[in-house]
Amino acid sequence: MESKLIADVEFTLLRQIEHPSGDVLHALKASEKSFKSFGEAYFSSVKMAKVKGWKKHKEMTLNLIVPTGAVRFVLLDDRPKSPTYNVFNEFILSRTNYARLTVPPGVWVAFQGKTDQENILLNLASIEHDPSEAESKKLEDIPFDWET
Amino acid sequence: MESKLIADVEFTLLRQIEHPSGDVLHALKASEKSFKSFGEAYFSSVKMAKVKGWKKHKEMTLNLIVPTGAVRFVLLDDRPKSPTYNVFNEFILSRTNYARLTVPPGVWVAFQGKTDQENILLNLASIEHDPSEAESKKLEDIPFDWET
Repeated sequence: MESKLIADVEFTLLRQIEHPSGDVLHALKASEKSFKSFGEAYFSSVKMAKVKGWKKHKEMTLNLIVPTGAVRFVLLDDRPKSPTYNVFNEFILSRTNYARLTVPPGVWVAFQGKTDQENILLNLASIEHDPSEAESKKLEDIPFDWET
Repeated sequence: MESKLIADVEFTLLRQIEHPSGDVLHALKASEKSFKSFGEAYFSSVKMAKVKGWKKHKEMTLNLIVPTGAVRFVLLDDRPKSPTYNVFNEFILSRTNYARLTVPPGVWVAFQGKTDQENILLNLASIEHDPSEAESKKLEDIPFDWET
């Protein structure tokens, strides 16, 4: 497991603005580098220890933020010409590690719930959902120890 | 309190797609009528019984979705030429009333937390945050009974 950040992946710490009635949490601005275009926003919840994935997009850039609970993301670079080909990255996003994870096309992604409460990610996707631009693999087809 | 929907306000029921590992929740697609442009996405949390508002935007269209907890939204149409001038609308959004509330410029908005757990809204705003295009009023400056 290498620690080098996969090329074109961005990990951006985000501001949480404290307020006595409830905090405001930044997610994404159109003027930020991570923003490509707006295609669709959706939430995905993932139960404790469950894993969703693997999935790889041909066109979609993902911008992932976790407002509720904690989600572990594992990424694998599958672009043969990439300087980080075959590199894995792992991130746990939550309100205590509040950040945005930008995933370019061509990178495999899977994610796992890490609390017994609800774990919810927001994906601000650069294009609308289109099954023809995504590939899937079974969890066991990419070696990663999800038990740890 | 009238029940007529304020002109240009949209209340859109959204799909929650059930999945044994955790559901997927729709929010907004670029091809939908409620989408104007993408300026910024942010979350705002609001504690039980607390109210944030009033606020009115000159330019921003809000698209509001509640993935966690429950939030009560109260809207007041302040556009003199609107067919629904001075009309109030009230909505409670949650996972059991899972919907998107589209609020056009010129409409006052305030919102209140409705559960003892976290109550979080996502705003998919048509422009980036800009204090010069928003007006504020104190809670007591618009008559509404927040205790009920």
